[in-house]
Amino acid sequence: MEKGKVLLALTGFHPQRWRELLSAEREVVLEPDGPSDPSITYAVVWKQRPNLLSKLPNLRAIFSIGAGVDHIFADPGLPDVPIVKVVADNLTQYMTEYIVWRVLDHHRQGMLYRTQQRKKIWHEPPQRSAGDISVGIMGLGHLGRAAASVLLSLGFAVNGWSRTEHPMTGVSTYAGEAELIPFLNATDILVVLLPLTPQTQGIINYGVLKELRKRNGLGGAVLINAGRGRLQKDADILRALEDGTLKEASLDVFEVEPLPKTSPLWSHPKVFVTPHAAATSDPAHLVPIMLQKMAAFERGEELENVVDRDAGY
Amino acid sequence: MEKGKVLLALTGFHPQRWRELLSAEREVVLEPDGPSDPSITYAVVWKQRPNLLSKLPNLRAIFSIGAGVDHIFADPGLPDVPIVKVVADNLTQYMTEYIVWRVLDHHRQGMLYRTQQRKKIWHEPPQRSAGDISVGIMGLGHLGRAAASVLLSLGFAVNGWSRTEHPMTGVSTYAGEAELIPFLNATDILVVLLPLTPQTQGIINYGVLKELRKRNGLGGAVLINAGRGRLQKDADILRALEDGTLKEASLDVFEVEPLPKTSPLWSHPKVFVTPHAAATSDPAHLVPIMLQKMAAFERGEELENVVDRDAGY
Ligand SMILES: NC(=O)c1ccc[n+]([C@@H]2O[C@H](COP(=O)([O-])OP(=O)(O)OC[C@H]3O[C@@H](n4cnc5c(N)ncnc54)[C@H](OP(=O)(O)O)[C@@H]3O)[C@@H](O)[C@H]2O)c1
Ligand SMILES: NC(=O)c1ccc[n+]([C@@H]2O[C@H](COP(=O)([O-])OP(=O)(O)OC[C@H]3O[C@@H](n4cnc5c(N)ncnc54)[C@H](OP(=O)(O)O)[C@@H]3O)[C@@H](O)[C@H]2O)c1
Repeated sequence: MEKGKVLLALTGFHPQRWRELLSAEREVVLEPDGPSDPSITYAVVWKQRPNLLSKLPNLRAIFSIGAGVDHIFADPGLPDVPIVKVVADNLTQYMTEYIVWRVLDHHRQGMLYRTQQRKKIWHEPPQRSAGDISVGIMGLGHLGRAAASVLLSLGFAVNGWSRTEHPMTGVSTYAGEAELIPFLNATDILVVLLPLTPQTQGIINYGVLKELRKRNGLGGAVLINAGRGRLQKDADILRALEDGTLKEASLDVFEVEPLPKTSPLWSHPKVFVTPHAAATSDPAHLVPIMLQKMAAFERGEELENVVDRDAGY
Repeated sequence: MEKGKVLLALTGFHPQRWRELLSAEREVVLEPDGPSDPSITYAVVWKQRPNLLSKLPNLRAIFSIGAGVDHIFADPGLPDVPIVKVVADNLTQYMTEYIVWRVLDHHRQGMLYRTQQRKKIWHEPPQRSAGDISVGIMGLGHLGRAAASVLLSLGFAVNGWSRTEHPMTGVSTYAGEAELIPFLNATDILVVLLPLTPQTQGIINYGVLKELRKRNGLGGAVLINAGRGRLQKDADILRALEDGTLKEASLDVFEVEPLPKTSPLWSHPKVFVTPHAAATSDPAHLVPIMLQKMAAFERGEELENVVDRDAGY
């Protein structure tokens, strides 16, 4: 097979570094040469313009520059070629850092200690052991499993929920809709690492938060969402914080991004906000992986980490 | 050997729970019955009153309720019996949590993100990979080694400095005064887990902080002290923060504790203060270990984790 040309179609990311690095091995174009450019074999995309890809007659594969692919499915004219998602140590490591950082900040009472410091209060509140706390990870995929393993080494109890059943040593696993409530009932700190699909959209709502474990001395459950913003209902999170269903939350993603200045989440004392920065796609680490996959594909090998179109992730 | 009686001599800790739990197996007294009470075999202490222990003719061992024993050596009339320090999974786990939490908060730019949130700024600053950052642990003992192992699993480069040489897989180890400067020169985030001894007192001074690695794009080194307050010079830390030698610091311990309200550390925007709470001694976990040791000692077994009087820890 011939060495294919790459269309780079990014919205909200600077194409410069991606282009430079891809160009080391392949010809890269930012705009197709006419609506049905036959020279393009691959598309490397983030929120590609709708119907941009549908008319390319020789497109063989679409590469997402992120682990999520919901931005690709948003295109009504998406052609029927394999979609490859990112699985990369560098990205996984960033996400593990973010999750462990946020779990520890809530567990070790960072918000309380920062308030005490502002007031110059020297006081040590009671501190639970990690072993008394269950962290429940919704979405026990590439990212969820990596975070689970460090959380286990810190001594936390870990629960995991996925669509299909897969066991993981040391983790209490739950699968499918039927086991969602038992999973939530056994969870103190809820970590969301689901993909956004028609099945998961809006899943983090008030009713679900209400099912999280209530225990004396813990003062409410904690939510950490680093999956996608449209998995959650921002208003339901606020309600749960107001009535004590949730004690605190760390949110990296939001229904609308950038989070509007008018959102009460910005200034809520129990919410920690980051700008969809939990795990950044770094071209220096991800482009070599994409180039390897294109070369392997042209040698006749099968593409790995291809999205299941029916499942939507 | 007979079942010995325990003197409980705590300053700054409520004796209640310790007494209750020790009483399950042994007779416990809070004050000796006269200056030379012959019935006391063990002392369980935190900052015991000076000369309290010196006249007990049948004292066989002193148990510290913490991992540090500097508070015991502060007694000028300290009798020459074995001093046992705490080594316990529960305490080690708390310290590992604290160290990993603080390293991640500095590495993932928590202070910057909290400032951005206050100003409702949606902006993702460049983020280094853990592999580009060296965490240097001063004091690679029970606590230092446990923290090192989780930091390694997060992908950080880890250096360790101790008095005597001991290798640890994955860690670049340095030993003794001669290797202090090379250790500091290779370190971005300095974690202090030393005991307080005549050799280590005041070791965290301006000259030492000045030796930490300077690298473009990192904007200064970071200090995390969870050892003892008198290892550091509070004023030197402030100076290093002012002139950019240090970018940020997390301090759990201080020259004077509680930290005086007049200390500029309380309100310094680059300092995170906790009230000597990194790893709390929990009687529920530590008393059973002490009781086991007393019983083993009375069966003729050797005491473990005995302090080396010459080394002072
Ligand atoms: N905030 C950020 O910076 C950032 C960065 C990267 C990724 N992300 C998000 O993280 C997500 C996860 O990434 P990943 O690489 O771990 O994906 P992955 O390997 O595909 O794992 C997805 C997990 O979610 C589970 N899941 C999917 N649909 C479900 C459903 N309806 N009910 C229950 N479980 C369901 C899957 O179950 P099965 O195991 O049964 O398939 C799997 O365990 C991405 O989709 C993306 O949205 C965010
Ligand atoms: N903030 C808190 O809440 C809290 C709680 C618990 C403990 N601590 C502090 O943590 C300290 C460490 O506890 P640990 O159980 O890990 O103690 P440890 O097992 O005795 O380890 C002490 C380490 O420090 C090294 N060291 C001692 N003197 C040194 C010197 N002069 N130069 C270089 N290295 C030196 C030792 O070197 P070698 O390996 O060569 O002996 C060893 O690696 C305690 O002493 C206590 O002060 C604080």
